[in-house]
Amino acid sequence: MPIGGAENKTSHSVILQRFVELSGGPEAHIVVLPAASALTDTGDRYCGIFAQFGIASSYCLDIHSRAEANDPACVEILHRATGIFLTGGDQVKLLSLIGGTLTAQIIHQRFAAGAVIAGTSAGASALSQSMIAFGRSGSVPSQRMVQLAPGLGLIDSITVDQHFRQRDRMGRLMTAVAFNAAIIGVGIDEDTAFIITPEGQCEVIGSGGVTIVDGSELEYSDIHLAQRHDPIAMVGMRVHTLTHGYSYDLNNRKIRRPDLSVHLPVVLKAVDAP
Amino acid sequence: MPIGGAENKTSHSVILQRFVELSGGPEAHIVVLPAASALTDTGDRYCGIFAQFGIASSYCLDIHSRAEANDPACVEILHRATGIFLTGGDQVKLLSLIGGTLTAQIIHQRFAAGAVIAGTSAGASALSQSMIAFGRSGSVPSQRMVQLAPGLGLIDSITVDQHFRQRDRMGRLMTAVAFNAAIIGVGIDEDTAFIITPEGQCEVIGSGGVTIVDGSELEYSDIHLAQRHDPIAMVGMRVHTLTHGYSYDLNNRKIRRPDLSVHLPVVLKAVDAP
Repeated sequence: MPIGGAENKTSHSVILQRFVELSGGPEAHIVVLPAASALTDTGDRYCGIFAQFGIASSYCLDIHSRAEANDPACVEILHRATGIFLTGGDQVKLLSLIGGTLTAQIIHQRFAAGAVIAGTSAGASALSQSMIAFGRSGSVPSQRMVQLAPGLGLIDSITVDQHFRQRDRMGRLMTAVAFNAAIIGVGIDEDTAFIITPEGQCEVIGSGGVTIVDGSELEYSDIHLAQRHDPIAMVGMRVHTLTHGYSYDLNNRKIRRPDLSVHLPVVLKAVDAP
Repeated sequence: MPIGGAENKTSHSVILQRFVELSGGPEAHIVVLPAASALTDTGDRYCGIFAQFGIASSYCLDIHSRAEANDPACVEILHRATGIFLTGGDQVKLLSLIGGTLTAQIIHQRFAAGAVIAGTSAGASALSQSMIAFGRSGSVPSQRMVQLAPGLGLIDSITVDQHFRQRDRMGRLMTAVAFNAAIIGVGIDEDTAFIITPEGQCEVIGSGGVTIVDGSELEYSDIHLAQRHDPIAMVGMRVHTLTHGYSYDLNNRKIRRPDLSVHLPVVLKAVDAP
């Protein structure tokens, strides 16, 4: 469950509430990993918020070194997590701490066992296999605009970008997809989440939008020819912008609209009727 | 010939040189209209640049009022123009001065007679029928992000945006296209031009790129439902980014790549051979 950052953190938060529900509601055991953050209170702050939703337990697992991330005693709490929450900060810092460690292994085990893994901002980027580490902002693609690195790899068919609308990241997401159009680009706005089931069924929730960059019909790109910071030519990129209530199927790249029938004027409904 | 602004203004300028060539080279009579600009020397500066290319004549037609724009004596010079150049500035200022005047009529007459009409920055926006008057920057579309107004209408199938990459204008161009997908969105980077023949054959030249937003396969947009500054949902937008040498056919929306055979490794060429 990647979140685009800056989500509503009150008890009315659509996003955090959904995370708590999916993690088991009153039976949820939530572990917060603030390793991406440079601030000292990030983890405790989220624990306090989750506690307000009336869950079974919340715990801040503050990892400061790879040694800790590999210490079974340190990370034992993860084994009973039904929900794991990766905070914002810097995805490179997060991966440099936990990449290839016992902590990452247990996260994968819990994910396979049905626990919900959520990440906001840097934590969202870290979920994918092909992770956007950093890059430049801008509407349109150019060479060296995006630096990719291996992420946690909980989902390998997408690459996630966050603070998407707010930080003008269309160009770098298109560039990431142009490297290998097998990957679906998912740009998530602030206060917006993209809930992905293990079966690849996705749902947009929150106040912003999710931009899908789909290279399945890409006819050509000259990313292999563009030098330095040259603009990159791309022919046939498909772009969707989806908002609250839209669904997306990662398997066939099909979109389902929310039921808007209440908004439709009667005359339009009549046209659709048999 | 819309130009994305900030074009190279030396005697090596690919863009200004092409404009001069298309206008007749040594036989060119070029009239510069700086009405969009708030600066007093914009027109004279361009006249000086064009003179360096060795043309027959260049003239700065400085229009300060609608009365002047309607005065046959004032604008008589336009009748012999083989090339007309609209400078940057503010497209709203330009249209408020010449919209519906004799000046605009003569520009249309000269265009029909084969003269080249070029515009840079604000002057580029002014060429289309559906003109982007102003708007907000950003990578992804939201309601009220773009204000459209009638432009000069020399070309009605596209809407032009400029300084495209530099000012992050993907969102507002997508929004403009979502209003009516009959219109092709053309976002032109700085120091880049999109040469359009009367037959609708287009060519990209310059150091940046041209982004094409093609709504012909748009399956759905909720632009009619989005309130205030809500994000807009769009399903099935096609986006191309084209660079120097690419061609685009406005009639069938087909792209032709530049001949890159010199760059292709031998093994790839062999695959294409019969």
